[in-house]
Amino acid sequence: MWWVRRTRYWFSTLLYAGGARLRPGRRTASGGLETPGSCGAELQGELDRFGGVSVHLSRHHTLHGLDAAAFRRLLQAAIQQWRSEGRIAAWLHIPILQSHFIAPAASLGFCFHHAKPHSSTLTLWLGEGPSRLPGYATHQVGVAGAVFDVSTRKVLVVQDRNKLKNMWKFPGGLSEPGEDIADTAVREVFEETGVKSEFRSLLSIRQQHRSPGAFGMSDMYLVCRLQPRSFTINFCQQECLKCEWIDLENLARTKHTTPITSRVARLLLYGLREGFDKIDLSMEELPAVYTGLFYKLYHRELPESYKAATGAD
Amino acid sequence: MWWVRRTRYWFSTLLYAGGARLRPGRRTASGGLETPGSCGAELQGELDRFGGVSVHLSRHHTLHGLDAAAFRRLLQAAIQQWRSEGRIAAWLHIPILQSHFIAPAASLGFCFHHAKPHSSTLTLWLGEGPSRLPGYATHQVGVAGAVFDVSTRKVLVVQDRNKLKNMWKFPGGLSEPGEDIADTAVREVFEETGVKSEFRSLLSIRQQHRSPGAFGMSDMYLVCRLQPRSFTINFCQQECLKCEWIDLENLARTKHTTPITSRVARLLLYGLREGFDKIDLSMEELPAVYTGLFYKLYHRELPESYKAATGAD
Repeated sequence: MWWVRRTRYWFSTLLYAGGARLRPGRRTASGGLETPGSCGAELQGELDRFGGVSVHLSRHHTLHGLDAAAFRRLLQAAIQQWRSEGRIAAWLHIPILQSHFIAPAASLGFCFHHAKPHSSTLTLWLGEGPSRLPGYATHQVGVAGAVFDVSTRKVLVVQDRNKLKNMWKFPGGLSEPGEDIADTAVREVFEETGVKSEFRSLLSIRQQHRSPGAFGMSDMYLVCRLQPRSFTINFCQQECLKCEWIDLENLARTKHTTPITSRVARLLLYGLREGFDKIDLSMEELPAVYTGLFYKLYHRELPESYKAATGAD
Repeated sequence: MWWVRRTRYWFSTLLYAGGARLRPGRRTASGGLETPGSCGAELQGELDRFGGVSVHLSRHHTLHGLDAAAFRRLLQAAIQQWRSEGRIAAWLHIPILQSHFIAPAASLGFCFHHAKPHSSTLTLWLGEGPSRLPGYATHQVGVAGAVFDVSTRKVLVVQDRNKLKNMWKFPGGLSEPGEDIADTAVREVFEETGVKSEFRSLLSIRQQHRSPGAFGMSDMYLVCRLQPRSFTINFCQQECLKCEWIDLENLARTKHTTPITSRVARLLLYGLREGFDKIDLSMEELPAVYTGLFYKLYHRELPESYKAATGAD
């Protein structure tokens, strides 16, 4: 495969290049555009830096009232034009209430790339060979919190109400869109158990594919070590059958738990005896190179002497 | 929020419960169904274990030829019926060529939940309060490989062809759907550089939100430590400007690199001097509890004495 698919930064932000608007059909003397059967409508696309062209139907007021057949003719002419100009891909952004334009686009080879609640994005590969377009999000992210109280050697666990077997596990759940791993852990622990806590470290990462709980997509499940800030349990009756502080050694030994809970309990036990630095991944916020955004980076604690004199950051 | 949203196992697999088919309107003497304006069509749903009802339009051959207005009336009657039966959510699975049914569904409150290339899934919350339905995949996953040769103390790096600044970084790219982290690292390194390698450990995890390279979604980027199995570079000219084995100490010190590359180079340097067990997360395959599937689990190496006598696995 080529770079288009493999590059990590496919910019959906479009370049509004002067003179780069793509118009199917002929420009008329009036500056408008005529395409056979389009009732004078035009389909303007914007170039992206990868040689693709993107059309936002919400910006095309002339499409109002156009039926599916007329839109199909318009799009067909546009595709022909884009091919002749050497475009490698076309993207259609369609508001949900204009979804009657989806089937005609599909009949010309477009497929869904992804959908957000009120719009969908379709794409058609125009380049040579198989499509090199990048896919959409493939993973859901779930986070559990292992809240461990060093002074009592107890850890906070729950039993789900809606599972076939009742087994002890750490409270947790799915990340909200845009939510940091550590924040999900603290929020889910509080919502499920009523216990307040603080992030300490990342302990483990699990990757599972074809997850029935992820609509057949992949699932990334992370367990964090949390420090309790309160101890009174007030658990969510709708979600949990039981919630208790139990002895860490008991959790590490019991059969009434999931493999991953048992494994993390053993990690905690090892950390308690030998030092948590043996099991922890620490977190740090760093600036992204191009975007002006920040990200969270997790890895083994690095001695200060190694951290000094950084590269481009 | 309640359990529906927070539970990690929302089964999209439906329960075909005997007698649980949901039918809007009245059952006629003939066993068929009549809904006003539906031309005798029926909209059969299947219950899921969470109290939702799911309709696959591909299984409704009687809908062929139905126009948007008639479908809207049919769906409206069905929604009324589902509400009266206490259903908490409705799901519509719509083949792309039947997308003219999307806008009428949206006019009744349905939104996109997600789309796959040839179909979309819409949902409507019918329960009390705000929707507690789980979201779809939120993250793309990218993996880079830090191929380090202990004998020469050199590490394999590339410079991207399509970036504004030319900085050394580890070869890598997006995971294919269903691909394990370790496999992505090895595949991407080979595709970009021609060097064969083997997975050794996971070194770091980065989480970034609103990523322009992820269509505004979140990005999880992992760096693995790989052991080279070949050394001759034959790099991808379309993707890379340069590809070299460079001295690890130089990579850790240069300014011509990204913050994350610099950080991982320092981790490797620390590992080289103090032992890679200081920086590694090891990987293990474990069985999933309910699904019969397996997953990969990454965490700090746990001494054998702690691993013995596991829980339910």
